[in-house]
Amino acid sequence: MSKANCLVAQSGGPTVAINASLAGVIAGVRASEQYDICYGAINGILGILNENYLNLNETIPDDDTLDKLKTSPAMYLGSCRHKLPDLKNDDSPYVFIFNQFAKLNIKAFFYIGGNDSMDTVLKLSDYAKKINSDIRIVGIPKTIDNDLCCTDHTPGFGSAAKYIATSLLEIAHDTFIYAVKSVTIVEIMGRDAGWLTAASALARNEYNTAPHFIYLPEVTFCKEQFLEDIREALKTRDNVIVAVSEGIRDEEGNYITASKAVADNFGHQQLSGAGKALEFLVKENIGVKVRSIEVNVLQRCASHLASATDLEEAFLQGKKGVALAQEGITASMVCLRRTSNHPYTVEYDHSPIAEIANEARSIPREWINERGNDIRPELLEYLRPLIQGEVDIRFAEGLPSYMNVSHLKRLP
Amino acid sequence: MSKANCLVAQSGGPTVAINASLAGVIAGVRASEQYDICYGAINGILGILNENYLNLNETIPDDDTLDKLKTSPAMYLGSCRHKLPDLKNDDSPYVFIFNQFAKLNIKAFFYIGGNDSMDTVLKLSDYAKKINSDIRIVGIPKTIDNDLCCTDHTPGFGSAAKYIATSLLEIAHDTFIYAVKSVTIVEIMGRDAGWLTAASALARNEYNTAPHFIYLPEVTFCKEQFLEDIREALKTRDNVIVAVSEGIRDEEGNYITASKAVADNFGHQQLSGAGKALEFLVKENIGVKVRSIEVNVLQRCASHLASATDLEEAFLQGKKGVALAQEGITASMVCLRRTSNHPYTVEYDHSPIAEIANEARSIPREWINERGNDIRPELLEYLRPLIQGEVDIRFAEGLPSYMNVSHLKRLP
Repeated sequence: MSKANCLVAQSGGPTVAINASLAGVIAGVRASEQYDICYGAINGILGILNENYLNLNETIPDDDTLDKLKTSPAMYLGSCRHKLPDLKNDDSPYVFIFNQFAKLNIKAFFYIGGNDSMDTVLKLSDYAKKINSDIRIVGIPKTIDNDLCCTDHTPGFGSAAKYIATSLLEIAHDTFIYAVKSVTIVEIMGRDAGWLTAASALARNEYNTAPHFIYLPEVTFCKEQFLEDIREALKTRDNVIVAVSEGIRDEEGNYITASKAVADNFGHQQLSGAGKALEFLVKENIGVKVRSIEVNVLQRCASHLASATDLEEAFLQGKKGVALAQEGITASMVCLRRTSNHPYTVEYDHSPIAEIANEARSIPREWINERGNDIRPELLEYLRPLIQGEVDIRFAEGLPSYMNVSHLKRLP
Repeated sequence: MSKANCLVAQSGGPTVAINASLAGVIAGVRASEQYDICYGAINGILGILNENYLNLNETIPDDDTLDKLKTSPAMYLGSCRHKLPDLKNDDSPYVFIFNQFAKLNIKAFFYIGGNDSMDTVLKLSDYAKKINSDIRIVGIPKTIDNDLCCTDHTPGFGSAAKYIATSLLEIAHDTFIYAVKSVTIVEIMGRDAGWLTAASALARNEYNTAPHFIYLPEVTFCKEQFLEDIREALKTRDNVIVAVSEGIRDEEGNYITASKAVADNFGHQQLSGAGKALEFLVKENIGVKVRSIEVNVLQRCASHLASATDLEEAFLQGKKGVALAQEGITASMVCLRRTSNHPYTVEYDHSPIAEIANEARSIPREWINERGNDIRPELLEYLRPLIQGEVDIRFAEGLPSYMNVSHLKRLP
């Protein structure tokens, strides 16, 4: 019996761990007796629609390249933000995609991504079922936001959390040096879920109590209460450091921003403002030295500070995806179940994609303190294992040595 | 003959290497036959005026602590931004400081800092000369801005440059994933000198040509020319990445800030910064997807990405300061002379403080291309050795393990 082939693609926003999951898929296919070639579609589902593929058996031919892939940031295969139409309105892309599967002898399709990507997995699964296709459709999770349902946590989150906590600690060192009253606002990514902002609490240690306050999207933001918090803290300390999620909202559900939010081309509101907004609040109402720091895209692409736990789990979830397909599982996403915190252990499992796509998971309210300005120890216990371990990335000429991604640039 | 003591302090903005210089001073004093106790003044020159000292023989008692100090960010002794008055107007702080020196049996004072701190070194040196004091006053350079005169480069700069180049490379990976036209503006510190912004060019490699443009304070910024640069680049590539110094100015010498750009179009002045200004320029005039990223204070405090070359040179410059004092040198700053690029070698020397204080060093115009939107290979050759080598910092529980700085916090 001749072997079938597999296809893998990546979608959504970048993370530090998404290439580790890709490496896991490649390793799984390589070790498989059912599968031969592992194709990669360039720029997510668009790569299939545009017939733009890489043969990953050729571009990632050995363990050395696989290791390098595992520790390179963002998507080796590129990404997209493309929503497939409702099947009942337009089945043409589905027909095209499954024709492509047939043409390349694809028997398993792996899509590595977050909520939006799992919507694609669901729609392809539904179509496969409708046409009685035996092609396995498996989602492999990825998002720094940690907001996917049915899994303990998502690949990419642990590394971003490690970056946030390290940055907070380094910002604290930067802040403590002046003997003048000051407030520092650190704005962290997260529109709807505050997991990453909460991870800033990991920076606390025997000499550092910062961040002194944590404001999350899960709790309605109240300006008066915020100013009261800051005034109170300034009575007992010189330097107050605040971690705030970009997605905090007032009681009417409006984002707290420095300027009126402008809708971008994709209908998202641009959220460059919560940190600046809080900076202005302090400046106008309290009048101490104040600055805001936006922890920018590096929180999702700083591979030089990846969590070893995160990369290893991402890799194994990629491999697990291939194993599931081989067992005949489809219409599912790979999931993690935490079995213990001391010692930290997880099991690799799966859940039906219908329970995951288009759902989001926020921080449970009981893991946030009553006043809504800090997290509880239970959340810290949940977070701490995820940032453990350092990754020995390669350096050349003083800089990290990452995978060549020149195949992503359509133009020279 | 009983041994004399030394006093050391740190001042100005934080860097990753300033504690390595402090470690060098401590190591130098420890090995000295002339000096006994190494005192540290808390919060720079203010520590002397407030009689606030640490006995560093006690707080840094062994090589293990010394090693940890060497790789911890920002100032272990805290900092200040305090300008001493002109001696001819008010000699009272000088009288007080030299009384403190007498009280603690100080025979050498080391001040680790940048331009402003060297002003303090000059003033103390002038006073010492006036009163015929034999106390040695020695400056030890530090600044991420690399703008001190009479030395090849400054401690702290190489690590910041390594952080900038790594960040640029990671931002490039983050940017290349989408097959849509986009412009990314990366704003880098540097009010008057563009050394750090220039270091972004080190991110270029066999697959990455970003940053595609570099705008420096040394060249007058022209909006029309900038838009022409971007439009031209977008003809031949999807993703254009720009590195810009916070200190770029127009032909009248005004900083390019977003508040202006915003005021022109929206009627309010809230946001600030060259990056935002360029973002708005592209948004309004070209209309592709655009974002700006401010590489924040982490560029000066991210010890987890320090340059081994930088930390080692900083340490040796601290030691050299002690050696100079022992030789009877005063009113001077430790300097580096580059003796070769291939292989890279430096010599440790000193220069009169009067030639350094209140002077600044910009990038020579001949190291910038004619159009003023990129650097020349000579500058890249100057920069490359400074980011070489990685530092094996300690981690505990998933986070860098830095020096306890609880002594800096006056209040609990």
